[in-house]
Amino acid sequence: MITEDLKTLIDNKTKPPGSLGLLEDLALQIGEILGTTGPQLINPHLVVFAADHGIAKEGVSAFPQEVTRQMVLNFLNGGAAINVFCKQHDIRLQVIDAGVNFDFDDGLPLGDGKIAKGTASFLHGPAMTTFQAELCLLKGEAVVAEIVAKGCNVIGFGEMGIGNTSSAAVLMSLLCDLPLSECIGRGTGLNDEQLLKKQQILEQAVANYKGDRDIFKLMAYFGGFELMEMTGAILAAGKRKMVIMVDGFIATAAYLCAYRIDQSIKKNAVFCHESEEKGHRLLLAYLEAKPLLSLHLRLGEGTGCALAYPLLKSAVNFLNEMASFQSAAISNKS
Amino acid sequence: MITEDLKTLIDNKTKPPGSLGLLEDLALQIGEILGTTGPQLINPHLVVFAADHGIAKEGVSAFPQEVTRQMVLNFLNGGAAINVFCKQHDIRLQVIDAGVNFDFDDGLPLGDGKIAKGTASFLHGPAMTTFQAELCLLKGEAVVAEIVAKGCNVIGFGEMGIGNTSSAAVLMSLLCDLPLSECIGRGTGLNDEQLLKKQQILEQAVANYKGDRDIFKLMAYFGGFELMEMTGAILAAGKRKMVIMVDGFIATAAYLCAYRIDQSIKKNAVFCHESEEKGHRLLLAYLEAKPLLSLHLRLGEGTGCALAYPLLKSAVNFLNEMASFQSAAISNKS
Repeated sequence: MITEDLKTLIDNKTKPPGSLGLLEDLALQIGEILGTTGPQLINPHLVVFAADHGIAKEGVSAFPQEVTRQMVLNFLNGGAAINVFCKQHDIRLQVIDAGVNFDFDDGLPLGDGKIAKGTASFLHGPAMTTFQAELCLLKGEAVVAEIVAKGCNVIGFGEMGIGNTSSAAVLMSLLCDLPLSECIGRGTGLNDEQLLKKQQILEQAVANYKGDRDIFKLMAYFGGFELMEMTGAILAAGKRKMVIMVDGFIATAAYLCAYRIDQSIKKNAVFCHESEEKGHRLLLAYLEAKPLLSLHLRLGEGTGCALAYPLLKSAVNFLNEMASFQSAAISNKS
Repeated sequence: MITEDLKTLIDNKTKPPGSLGLLEDLALQIGEILGTTGPQLINPHLVVFAADHGIAKEGVSAFPQEVTRQMVLNFLNGGAAINVFCKQHDIRLQVIDAGVNFDFDDGLPLGDGKIAKGTASFLHGPAMTTFQAELCLLKGEAVVAEIVAKGCNVIGFGEMGIGNTSSAAVLMSLLCDLPLSECIGRGTGLNDEQLLKKQQILEQAVANYKGDRDIFKLMAYFGGFELMEMTGAILAAGKRKMVIMVDGFIATAAYLCAYRIDQSIKKNAVFCHESEEKGHRLLLAYLEAKPLLSLHLRLGEGTGCALAYPLLKSAVNFLNEMASFQSAAISNKS
């Protein structure tokens, strides 16, 4: 019913039918999610989950682990890319310590989602306990619950965690049954030699895993705290009927986990961009997702969400503000 | 010198080098155009040139010619897509009557660039006289001169003109030496039969042309008033060292003409999107242009410029506002 009403409304706007391309699909989707032909995007939020990874110690990243905490402080000081883009589009930014290997000063405007000071390396054993993985989902859900209470109906998620493309690549490979080599990329900027080393380490890690393909077991074994909290947050945002902005490779891996738990979240997900990180294009294709932007970004932090957000607004705006053929007295197709 | 300074500045921002993808190229380009490491986009404008086409009478469009004037009134009443997107991004919209087949009431906020009430059909003869073509370039230049006087340094161009994909397709084919069939698309929404008819008419028109490949002769013979005024405006904006936003198929054809006259404008041009109109992808490839958006738009009006404008702002903003590795005390690559 609402779908048909939205389609009629969109087709009667003063433009050739379909000529606004993906923005028309987006207007339809947002109207469906919010259950109205006059949707409004209210109090947009972007949550960055940050955590450290034991696997980083095996040498899978171009940057040292301390960069995670340094970047968290950069977020809090307003100096990172995600700060700039959120400010530009009036998006409220919230940073959650999901498990950074550092004791931050009390009193910093940092959300508490801390599970532990980094995961264990999953090269020879699980990254976290089953209890920790469950706690991640709950903490992610709690973050969203608090934001929903502020009237927000559109939310994006970003991440910071040196080593987290390794977690994402392994989860993607095992959950989608795709060769690990297709899922592994250069992350923050590995050279050829480092990339080969990353691949060898991750192949060894997968070989060492003796469990089955159960989603919860895989998340606990190969996951990161920020990744799993994001999964919990995505699931919660879906239940709250929010518009969910999905960012790059890590965020899409978190979405993949959420989707495996609850397929109904697909209708809420807006895929904001296609990242330059190797596995992302394949993962989007696997999910049959059409990303809005393709700017060769590979930064994370939720930057793709913040940059795509004006397109969500444009979709809503044309739906609400454009004249119809009738109201503007314009001849329709001859 | 400025190029090196900009590159150093960009690489020292708190992100892996290159991780902001096309936004980094854009920041560099805008800095180079405006000649500073701290560029500001000032008083953005979007100019829509509107005109009618004699060729429309041969049955090359899905919409009747009166839609041109109806859409001009829709622009003036604020009901079109371009109104909505310009309002969203605080872009000043200006509509120029370059040659609509209608006498508009005096006192409407419509810029005067009128050459005649539509071109002649180029099926059997030239669309306009050489004098009219020269006048188009001058009128386009005058529009830009007036806008520059308001301090504007970033400008986009859109168009409205039933039948104008026909002009653009023929100009593209002849100027790029590409088969006409590769340059012709469905415009506002032709079906297969209508598309075939459009192709036959345009092939006949090209066969009837006995002139040479001189750019000015081709523009006069196959051009549209809006298309040629846009070419003049693009040339003028280049001379004024402005950032020029290039929209879809028609606008890129106008750019192509401008580029043939003055290749130095390439450094000023930001290609805003890849249109769904068939010839556009090929034309962008021919120009070695990397478009910012690919949203399957095929609306014209400058909508691709308005939708891409926030990305230009993001490029400038990260350049001006992000912290450096040094200022944020963040470890660089290990």
